Amino acid sequence: MADQNLNLPKVIMHGPPALSSVLQPSYSQNFHIINPSFLPLHQFISTHTHLCSTVYAMLCYPGYPVTAHELRLLPSLRLVVTPSAGTDHIDLSECRHRGIRVAGAGNLFSADVADLAVALLIDVTMRISAADRCLKRRTPFASSHFPRSFKLTGKKVGIVGMGKIGIEVAHRLEAFGCIISYNSRNKKPLVKYPFYSTVVELATNNNALVLCCALNDQTRHTVNREVMLALGKEGVIVNVARGALIEENELLRCLMEGEIGGAGLDVFENEPHVNQRFFLLDNVVLSPHAGFSTSESFTGIAQLVGRNLEAFFSNKPLITPVI
Amino acid sequence: MADQNLNLPKVIMHGPPALSSVLQPSYSQNFHIINPSFLPLHQFISTHTHLCSTVYAMLCYPGYPVTAHELRLLPSLRLVVTPSAGTDHIDLSECRHRGIRVAGAGNLFSADVADLAVALLIDVTMRISAADRCLKRRTPFASSHFPRSFKLTGKKVGIVGMGKIGIEVAHRLEAFGCIISYNSRNKKPLVKYPFYSTVVELATNNNALVLCCALNDQTRHTVNREVMLALGKEGVIVNVARGALIEENELLRCLMEGEIGGAGLDVFENEPHVNQRFFLLDNVVLSPHAGFSTSESFTGIAQLVGRNLEAFFSNKPLITPVI
Repeated sequence: MADQNLNLPKVIMHGPPALSSVLQPSYSQNFHIINPSFLPLHQFISTHTHLCSTVYAMLCYPGYPVTAHELRLLPSLRLVVTPSAGTDHIDLSECRHRGIRVAGAGNLFSADVADLAVALLIDVTMRISAADRCLKRRTPFASSHFPRSFKLTGKKVGIVGMGKIGIEVAHRLEAFGCIISYNSRNKKPLVKYPFYSTVVELATNNNALVLCCALNDQTRHTVNREVMLALGKEGVIVNVARGALIEENELLRCLMEGEIGGAGLDVFENEPHVNQRFFLLDNVVLSPHAGFSTSESFTGIAQLVGRNLEAFFSNKPLITPVI
Repeated sequence: MADQNLNLPKVIMHGPPALSSVLQPSYSQNFHIINPSFLPLHQFISTHTHLCSTVYAMLCYPGYPVTAHELRLLPSLRLVVTPSAGTDHIDLSECRHRGIRVAGAGNLFSADVADLAVALLIDVTMRISAADRCLKRRTPFASSHFPRSFKLTGKKVGIVGMGKIGIEVAHRLEAFGCIISYNSRNKKPLVKYPFYSTVVELATNNNALVLCCALNDQTRHTVNREVMLALGKEGVIVNVARGALIEENELLRCLMEGEIGGAGLDVFENEPHVNQRFFLLDNVVLSPHAGFSTSESFTGIAQLVGRNLEAFFSNKPLITPVI
């Protein structure tokens, strides 16, 4: 096997030790997978200089930065693949500068992430998890035991980031009779919903905010105290994008002070660590960055990563190119 | 107040002690509310024969039967109002026979119940509450800690009962990319979805069943072991209609034996008691018959009950007549 491997294109892993499971057996046979496992990438490379000098592709993962530093360590690198929709862990301009291609998950997770966003919004609004918890503590039940729930139908929902996921969230929520508006970098000519040029204005005019935008220097901490106060005491924030879009300590403060009504969070500022103060709040529903982790999508991303690698090493166009 | 009351139309309550709160103050001033509180109806009437002999209207509640027995005790009764969509607690043919009108909730709760049905289906499928519970027990999180979740998009969902609620559920689920079919007493000419004439066939051809039909002698225990086995090991059952549509002990057995994948239940056979064996199952999401209990709908039903009573005592047509 080691001898066979020598002739296979080398792919280095840069992520959690289990990342290599994202390459299905059928695809992994076609590559020489180099897995530093629990070692930090730079440490592994420094002790395997020769092996790594001919690595052409990297499979990386959110939370594991691919910056100029990592790229310098791999002089032959020409492709970075991430099994994620977000690419904020990759220094794209440095990749561009070095002529390194990047492939992502394309729209593979859009439906799941949109489903999750809607699920979190209904859950917080109608108090589904809270009622489940409450019921399991006391039976017979009486409505007076249960937290106050609210209607979803007719609610005004502001979507931050009107890309593929934002569009899918809007489409689903319209079927619930919600009224949609949005904010994004620019007004989108093909999007029919009302546009607000700032997140504060969007919050002022809506009952809920759903965050579906990319994280970058412009969007970091875009949901600050001012936005939360504009959203108001019954307002709900759903985040299925990136934790750092929200000033998390302010969110906690506003939730505890009753300045906003509730939150549904799939992402956190210090993932995979979650601030345990969230656990005490009955009006918060937490999800472990699971927007992409349905069984079907896991199979799908494994295939997609393999197909991008196959395409790259056959000099064909990437299936889901980022750059 | 007692003197004033003598001239007001009498409305007797037959339900939980807090039922009179369903009549808003503005409406309750227009009626002489007779509330047996914790006394059973027949016992209250037997000790208040004179008072009850001129009761023209009753406000009843699911779980508190209005049968020939109760009706006989109230010889002047001409109207029964229930603040529910379901009327299985009322002997409608006996009411018809006695010339007693019945008013229900009409479609007031349809949107909320449909929202809840979709919420329960997503929750069980994508493991929202289970992941929330799991995350609150351990951080940092890793995807391997969490229960396997499934995609909603593309799932085939069979709806039992294609009335107003069934239609609203179908409409919402179509926006998620689900494929809809249905079973009802008869094929509905205006409904575009494929029709199956039995619930077993519907279960055989779908990944999930959503129960939205009325409870009656034909539908009682319609979801039996045969239906559950036909639905299969990854199948999900959602019930937002009435508990007795399902053979609950069989459901528990099938869930525990892994013969079906999960269940989302807003209703139970012995409400308000819930079989505590459900509490041990991670693939079950429970809701306390809450389909109608959003804050907005509670205000709405209070007004609607009042308006039906007002209409009846002014000899106008009922707002939301059942018979």
